[in-house]
Amino acid sequence: MSNYHHVDVKRIEKDIYQLSQIGYNEEDKGIYRQGFTEADMEARKWFSHQLNQLDMNARMDGAGNVIGRYGDPHKPAILIGSHIDSVPSGGIFDGTLGLIAGLECIRIIREQKIDLKHPVEIIATSEEEGRFGGMLGAQALTGNLTLDWLESSRDPSTGEYLKDAMARCGLDYREAMHAKKPRESMVAFIELHIEQGPVLELEKKTIGIVEGISGVFKWLVKLIGKADHAGTAPMNMRSDAFMGMADFAHEISRIIDEEGTDKTRLTIGHVELKPGYAHTIPGEADFTLVGRDMSEEVMTNVAAACARVLGAIARKHRLKFEYNQMSWLAPQPCSPAIMSQIEHTTRELGYDYMIMPSGAGHDAQFFTGVTPTGLIFIPSVGGVSHAPDEWSHWEDVEKGTNVLLNTLLHIDQVN
Amino acid sequence: MSNYHHVDVKRIEKDIYQLSQIGYNEEDKGIYRQGFTEADMEARKWFSHQLNQLDMNARMDGAGNVIGRYGDPHKPAILIGSHIDSVPSGGIFDGTLGLIAGLECIRIIREQKIDLKHPVEIIATSEEEGRFGGMLGAQALTGNLTLDWLESSRDPSTGEYLKDAMARCGLDYREAMHAKKPRESMVAFIELHIEQGPVLELEKKTIGIVEGISGVFKWLVKLIGKADHAGTAPMNMRSDAFMGMADFAHEISRIIDEEGTDKTRLTIGHVELKPGYAHTIPGEADFTLVGRDMSEEVMTNVAAACARVLGAIARKHRLKFEYNQMSWLAPQPCSPAIMSQIEHTTRELGYDYMIMPSGAGHDAQFFTGVTPTGLIFIPSVGGVSHAPDEWSHWEDVEKGTNVLLNTLLHIDQVN
Repeated sequence: MSNYHHVDVKRIEKDIYQLSQIGYNEEDKGIYRQGFTEADMEARKWFSHQLNQLDMNARMDGAGNVIGRYGDPHKPAILIGSHIDSVPSGGIFDGTLGLIAGLECIRIIREQKIDLKHPVEIIATSEEEGRFGGMLGAQALTGNLTLDWLESSRDPSTGEYLKDAMARCGLDYREAMHAKKPRESMVAFIELHIEQGPVLELEKKTIGIVEGISGVFKWLVKLIGKADHAGTAPMNMRSDAFMGMADFAHEISRIIDEEGTDKTRLTIGHVELKPGYAHTIPGEADFTLVGRDMSEEVMTNVAAACARVLGAIARKHRLKFEYNQMSWLAPQPCSPAIMSQIEHTTRELGYDYMIMPSGAGHDAQFFTGVTPTGLIFIPSVGGVSHAPDEWSHWEDVEKGTNVLLNTLLHIDQVN
Repeated sequence: MSNYHHVDVKRIEKDIYQLSQIGYNEEDKGIYRQGFTEADMEARKWFSHQLNQLDMNARMDGAGNVIGRYGDPHKPAILIGSHIDSVPSGGIFDGTLGLIAGLECIRIIREQKIDLKHPVEIIATSEEEGRFGGMLGAQALTGNLTLDWLESSRDPSTGEYLKDAMARCGLDYREAMHAKKPRESMVAFIELHIEQGPVLELEKKTIGIVEGISGVFKWLVKLIGKADHAGTAPMNMRSDAFMGMADFAHEISRIIDEEGTDKTRLTIGHVELKPGYAHTIPGEADFTLVGRDMSEEVMTNVAAACARVLGAIARKHRLKFEYNQMSWLAPQPCSPAIMSQIEHTTRELGYDYMIMPSGAGHDAQFFTGVTPTGLIFIPSVGGVSHAPDEWSHWEDVEKGTNVLLNTLLHIDQVN
């Protein structure tokens, strides 16, 4: 334990509260710092200032990422990153935790004059929350961008084009293509983030070592029966599209038991019945089905089972069944080497931990393909996030940052 | 059989086609004759003319009902009634069948100089389809109206007040209160109508002898759970309001098996999930539940079972459960004496028949409380109604009208 360093959580607390003033809404107590808004750009300026106070020579790349470097300007660096933008009416920890924790790591390294073999970069990524349908900053850094997408992408709620929003912030969207980091410039990518789910709290663990970001598929399912008068059509003469959907929902737990794992999720989040009148048997049920797992093979088996069960139920209820696969994203596994370094550090620090998937998307998911990547979770009170009452206890923030710092030092030594 | 009279279906066909010209829409081939529209009033004028050609001295009462009488102007009458208004884009048989069949009955009685003990009235009721939320004509005739309702009732789709719509047609809504028929002025009420459901066709029966109009209750049910990220919340840590609703839907057939009858219907026709995003576990499911049966005791037991099952499922899924009973209408049984007269007649005529409830509402339901009431169904092709492709075969129209005529003659003799 003597080799382990500890952070000062009071300084983290002060920084998080200071940053939370930017984009704060007095009325609902939420943070409004959506990508490429004024508040977002003000936060980037504030963060650049913090980096420069640590002599990290902050710069903004063509995608709006704010990057500061501690150490040699040319050697391959260890990256610590997360996002500074928020959802509308978001909380104060989402994204910012990983950045403020990164600042504290550099402060400790400087104060305690710890010798590093590698430079360290802290990166405040841009537009992680997907206002424009992606994770612009992380995609730019890892070469997952096309000019075509940059030109056509727009905010569905306002209709604004990404390129116009960037121009308003003084950025030329074409420059985002130059933000790509060569593989050989990176040693590793580490992100500390709040869990945004209930698992750590319910399992009474402080640290979540993320094994990867779950793969996810999204279907639009249509069951088509026959709209009839709810009074005149006897139960056994109906082609009730709603009842078909309900029967399928009832089979979801069996499908997971038979084809899935404890990491599988299947969710019906949106439903529309047609015509949707109280006194009319639904002639059509349109619904979304979103599936997740850490294994693409499991995803494939679960999806096949869903199609099979939907087909059988459709026949039973005299319905037509069709579905449209809107997206299929493969799981993004984290680096086993980084995971075991995080695990070793966490164990040495004496914290409870568990290995878990991330069902939500994070900047880290784009780095898994280009450099050894690690993702560390701390508990979210009540599992709440993307809301003003998002909270994490300061002792968990402290422990999470201790894990981040000592993992960083460990990676620095062994690479 | 020698005592039985037979109608001329060619004349019925001609009348139905002629009436179908009024309010006909060339584009969708549907009938647009909603209550108190120009087309509706034109149809009433046309029908008055038909009545007067049979010397029936047509008049319009204060509620817009068109009434013609054959026989003594003062003695208690046998009433034959149905409606002449339609839903938007309706079919050519709904309501009109009972009226045109009534005309044919009077024609046969006149031509064959059949002596009647009682006068016969034919009544084209007003606003049966409920554009203003009731069955104005039948309610007025049976004393089921209040001035308050007449003043406040409006068409939800246009916002127009009933009283204004009536004024446009030259009617003073206050006069509707005077349309009530004294009980002692009525011998019986008989309605011939298309089934508007699939049962007769599927059971291969020509005549449905309706035992009554099902009672119906309507609930708005709310299941309240917790909206969570569909990726971060494991299946066993969710309070998924949709899954609660689906589990309940799955129990509907068991509830009917245990508490209901073969006449019970339970329908979920409208569903709204909140927030309703594909990637968010529904925190709330609001849905309608409409239940029907011919016995009020069965309705009570089915409703209690629904509440019990919803409560148990809510506990299992960690949901809050509430419901709002929007309406509870008791079943309206037809007269057993009239039913057995219809049955006797049908059997003598040699037609297949069955005794069945009416799940849909009809003018007859308001007469059950004030005079012996009978309701006769003929098959609807494919069970379709309230649509341009509503159809009934002319041979079924003929047989139905034969049953109506001979039942009328039978009632006349035995009363």
